[in-house]
Amino acid sequence: MIRVFVNGFGTIGKRVAFAVKKQDDLELVGVAKKKPDFKAYIANKFGIPLYVLNEDQIEEFENHGIKVNGVLGEALENADIIVDAAPKGVGAKNKELYLKFGKRAIFQGGESHDIVEVSFTAQANYRQALGKRFVRVVSCNTTAMARVLSELRKIANIRRVRGILVRRAADPWETKKGPIDAIVPSFKIPSHHAPDVKTVLGDLNIITLAVVVPTTRMHLHILNVEFDTRVDVDSVIDVLESAPRILIVPTRLGLDSTATIIELARDLGRERNDWYEVLVFSDGIRVHDNERWIEDAVHQEAVVGRENSEAIRGRVKIYEDGGRSIEKTDRSLGILRRL
Amino acid sequence: MIRVFVNGFGTIGKRVAFAVKKQDDLELVGVAKKKPDFKAYIANKFGIPLYVLNEDQIEEFENHGIKVNGVLGEALENADIIVDAAPKGVGAKNKELYLKFGKRAIFQGGESHDIVEVSFTAQANYRQALGKRFVRVVSCNTTAMARVLSELRKIANIRRVRGILVRRAADPWETKKGPIDAIVPSFKIPSHHAPDVKTVLGDLNIITLAVVVPTTRMHLHILNVEFDTRVDVDSVIDVLESAPRILIVPTRLGLDSTATIIELARDLGRERNDWYEVLVFSDGIRVHDNERWIEDAVHQEAVVGRENSEAIRGRVKIYEDGGRSIEKTDRSLGILRRL
Amino acid sequence: MIRVFVNGFGTIGKRVAFAVKKQDDLELVGVAKKKPDFKAYIANKFGIPLYVLNEDQIEEFENHGIKVNGVLGEALENADIIVDAAPKGVGAKNKELYLKFGKRAIFQGGESHDIVEVSFTAQANYRQALGKRFVRVVSCNTTAMARVLSELRKIANIRRVRGILVRRAADPWETKKGPIDAIVPSFKIPSHHAPDVKTVLGDLNIITLAVVVPTTRMHLHILNVEFDTRVDVDSVIDVLESAPRILIVPTRLGLDSTATIIELARDLGRERNDWYEVLVFSDGIRVHDNERWIEDAVHQEAVVGRENSEAIRGRVKIYEDGGRSIEKTDRSLGILRRL
Amino acid sequence: MIRVFVNGFGTIGKRVAFAVKKQDDLELVGVAKKKPDFKAYIANKFGIPLYVLNEDQIEEFENHGIKVNGVLGEALENADIIVDAAPKGVGAKNKELYLKFGKRAIFQGGESHDIVEVSFTAQANYRQALGKRFVRVVSCNTTAMARVLSELRKIANIRRVRGILVRRAADPWETKKGPIDAIVPSFKIPSHHAPDVKTVLGDLNIITLAVVVPTTRMHLHILNVEFDTRVDVDSVIDVLESAPRILIVPTRLGLDSTATIIELARDLGRERNDWYEVLVFSDGIRVHDNERWIEDAVHQEAVVGRENSEAIRGRVKIYEDGGRSIEKTDRSLGILRRL
Repeated sequence: MIRVFVNGFGTIGKRVAFAVKKQDDLELVGVAKKKPDFKAYIANKFGIPLYVLNEDQIEEFENHGIKVNGVLGEALENADIIVDAAPKGVGAKNKELYLKFGKRAIFQGGESHDIVEVSFTAQANYRQALGKRFVRVVSCNTTAMARVLSELRKIANIRRVRGILVRRAADPWETKKGPIDAIVPSFKIPSHHAPDVKTVLGDLNIITLAVVVPTTRMHLHILNVEFDTRVDVDSVIDVLESAPRILIVPTRLGLDSTATIIELARDLGRERNDWYEVLVFSDGIRVHDNERWIEDAVHQEAVVGRENSEAIRGRVKIYEDGGRSIEKTDRSLGILRRL
Repeated sequence: MIRVFVNGFGTIGKRVAFAVKKQDDLELVGVAKKKPDFKAYIANKFGIPLYVLNEDQIEEFENHGIKVNGVLGEALENADIIVDAAPKGVGAKNKELYLKFGKRAIFQGGESHDIVEVSFTAQANYRQALGKRFVRVVSCNTTAMARVLSELRKIANIRRVRGILVRRAADPWETKKGPIDAIVPSFKIPSHHAPDVKTVLGDLNIITLAVVVPTTRMHLHILNVEFDTRVDVDSVIDVLESAPRILIVPTRLGLDSTATIIELARDLGRERNDWYEVLVFSDGIRVHDNERWIEDAVHQEAVVGRENSEAIRGRVKIYEDGGRSIEKTDRSLGILRRL
Repeated sequence: MIRVFVNGFGTIGKRVAFAVKKQDDLELVGVAKKKPDFKAYIANKFGIPLYVLNEDQIEEFENHGIKVNGVLGEALENADIIVDAAPKGVGAKNKELYLKFGKRAIFQGGESHDIVEVSFTAQANYRQALGKRFVRVVSCNTTAMARVLSELRKIANIRRVRGILVRRAADPWETKKGPIDAIVPSFKIPSHHAPDVKTVLGDLNIITLAVVVPTTRMHLHILNVEFDTRVDVDSVIDVLESAPRILIVPTRLGLDSTATIIELARDLGRERNDWYEVLVFSDGIRVHDNERWIEDAVHQEAVVGRENSEAIRGRVKIYEDGGRSIEKTDRSLGILRRL
Repeated sequence: MIRVFVNGFGTIGKRVAFAVKKQDDLELVGVAKKKPDFKAYIANKFGIPLYVLNEDQIEEFENHGIKVNGVLGEALENADIIVDAAPKGVGAKNKELYLKFGKRAIFQGGESHDIVEVSFTAQANYRQALGKRFVRVVSCNTTAMARVLSELRKIANIRRVRGILVRRAADPWETKKGPIDAIVPSFKIPSHHAPDVKTVLGDLNIITLAVVVPTTRMHLHILNVEFDTRVDVDSVIDVLESAPRILIVPTRLGLDSTATIIELARDLGRERNDWYEVLVFSDGIRVHDNERWIEDAVHQEAVVGRENSEAIRGRVKIYEDGGRSIEKTDRSLGILRRL
């Protein structure tokens, strides 16, 4: 059993923690929280050992009715590997701590590629990351593109990718973030996603551009892919359908928006109505001239949670083969291969 | 085993159907759908017999990859009781059909009180509805108010209630309804909710007013309650805390908006992230002069689903006592009495 | 000519400045800005002298293509009276500066009542504020309630007011503020508005409660007013119709939401599509038992801009009579008495 | 003086009518309305003769306090040219009427290209449309793309255009349209815009794709343009800066979203806060490899209103030269060439 500690228990951290709990080869030794909010209550409720950052916080948590198991240092001592799920940028500082305690660690996409040896997406470069001490699971947007593009280039060489990311502005529970009624383009071209995809897939001619819109549910990706040779729609469908963690959703059933896709997750009884899979709209796969267009939806809260299981196993070489780890994780979590 | 058929498989119908499936004294004989959308797919997926309205629709459904078990008439024949979950106003027409087939039926809050013998909220007037042939489960807003007010009048006589309903504009999956950026007041004073509450609670001096706002998550109720005598905050908390299907949420944990409350449902692993309970904000219970103010959140999709189980049992007198039926339903569905 | 300086050029400041420019007895000597954004560009564009907070900022502004006329101290020297339109709380600090320069000043509703001699709404207590050195124009919500209630109590003695404020979450241009899809109640009962109304109207039995919703256009107020005697709808309509800065909008023309009301402002050619008036929905004036209900919409950006003209004149006793100042301002700005 | 009648007085119709009123060579003989709403009130208020569709409607309008000048047939008789601003698809039916009355007519972008001789954007193909009897002013999205692309191909031959349209879901006053919290992609590739652009610009290798998002303010266009030769950013800026009805907005001043751009329109005192111009973000013009990326914002309500003036003049050959008509219109309406 690998003893895993999750440092941070927000949108990503809580998903990693619950996923780890379900793996029979991993043991969750605890999570760390900074604030005594309802997520801390959830840790208590589900019997997850809860650690605070320092002694001073213990009283504050207890005043809010939250039980605390100890402080961060104690927990790190006791773990084999740390999944860092701290807010953007904090992970870089935490790395010093992990070095001091002599632990392996996995960072999230908010951190820079520079602080790790390998940036990681399970189905794209599991082997490359094998045994590395510090690995970064890339962001939800990058993970989704890395998944889809790593599959597409099995069909033929990709000459050029243009990706437009229509991004959700906030997570569902974040009541302070906007905009309420505006489109906010980003002006960085390429946006950070294109270079980020290359940290996983290596050389690839890709450009990305992101736009923020007032929704909380999912991102929408529009990918324009040029292959070296003509590729028909069926080949694209075949390779995506047989890939793990990518699902084709039948648009004809009214699954034609991010909102109905999330409703489907609720109806299917998915935990937290999460989609770990990238969801490609069946009517959103089109060929025009020599270009393929793909529209897919990305559940920003959930996509990377699963990647962390593989990242953990790869750190300690439980599986040499990423496919077997993916299969194991996906079976334990009810990830679908086909609707 | 009572054989239950659910006519309609939308927001309410699907919740009633899944709740019925979990009761050991009820048998779900099927559901009816009008359109071959993803909800029909869900019926197939979970092995729920699916009926269409007429022979013509069978081919349309099959062309969409949906299996059909038969047409409505066949299903009605085979049921002891019908839960009508058709769109607003259609239930009134369906009643003719139920009369023709000689069946008992339960209608939803979109229908008029005139078409039934009793309008119903389990914890308010279970006994009154006992054995009646046609019963109406009132709407989510009315159910929530009936629950809270039926409990509050156990403390003391209520002189006057003023209710402001800040209503969600659409359900999460409804992408065609607005507004996007506006407040739309209703000008009917009282709104239909006040008379509707009286169909359940009988004589009560209540006035309500509703406002629609651009959100999909929950309604917010602001109740201003005048008692005949002075009532302190603790009495209100006590009676609400010990009541079924009402929960007090600790605002101090960041549970201070409809969005964080829904996030809590997700974290708790609630099916479809549903709150069957009315959620009273702990910091939203206040006394000022001789008036009590209560702010609660109402999950419009989920609140009435559970009421239907009691409505079913009450039709066939399985339980003389509503409390026992409520307990049975709530145990089977994981409804909480306290966070 | 009174020389007026406006310290701050945001939502309120720019409206005050443009209103001052249109008064023939007031002279706008300049405005101050902290950031070189498009509002600074607007000052340049319309020939309004622009001042920065300190010497260091001059270069930053010029690098953004903005011309600067000087620093704050120079401008204060040159003014008879300051309208402080700084962000919430900053006004209190600025007061030290105004004292140092020996100037009169008008503060906005974000500041505390404690820092001024009188809190002010033109049609409610103009005379009371006459000649005072430091006056506060109360917030948009408070101003709107003070206007309506000061008129209503001309009909009869008010026994009790309950006000529910359904508040817009951000101004139209604020892209960082949320929520996007949530209702966020406040739990302070009364909210700060009730005591604030009393700073203007004196003794009044009022309680208020505020809820934030995801819109940018206007606030909606729901007022429940109990009079000592029976008051019919016509009396309410009469007094509101003949009052300045209150308009009754005919709901029957589709003016039934905050969005259509703003559209009307655009169609009428109102500057910035601003409503300086409180807009009472004609169908939102109702009598029920002994209570009157009034629903009105409040343009958060615009309502208080006009009050500042009266506040300025009252400081230097140009008019002993608030009504004459209101008339003068309103004529110059195209404020309507009737649609 | 050309006598112009505007059939329809909604979002487009009212803008066309007000623009016509300001032209000294055009006379507005009236507008037609179907419903007695606040837009009818506006016609009355500004002295615009108001016509209804048939005799039966006169009483309905008068009951709403709206004065009516006559019925549609009378107005058509009296006009030289009709601008049809009826809802999508109704124009095709109205054409019969215009033929019957022997009138020239201009249709809007909701109608099919098939019902006219020429589809039109003033600065792209004014001459081609000259003297034609039936002309169509294309939709806001198409007009914006036609403007920008007709200018860009002055620099060099365009090899390929890919356009992603992030569309607003409703106009500001439309309270019934959603979505509230979802992204709704369209799956038609190309969307109708690409062929529509070709009806104006002729042969052009263009593909477009549209996505609907929950905002009311403006569309955002992302154009990816490949030229035959290398083109630098400055050439793009130069040609767009010197083009009519295209403005470059300085992102550095906080003009970095659709919301702040609309706020600028308000601050500039633009009628209805309208942007007739296409607004290109200065930081949204980028070169990457051999491709140019352009991000611009399109005010869906306002962009086409001005085109109609040219369309009118072109019908009756007042000006042989579109540039002179554009100049005349733009001067009368305060359209900017540069911020």
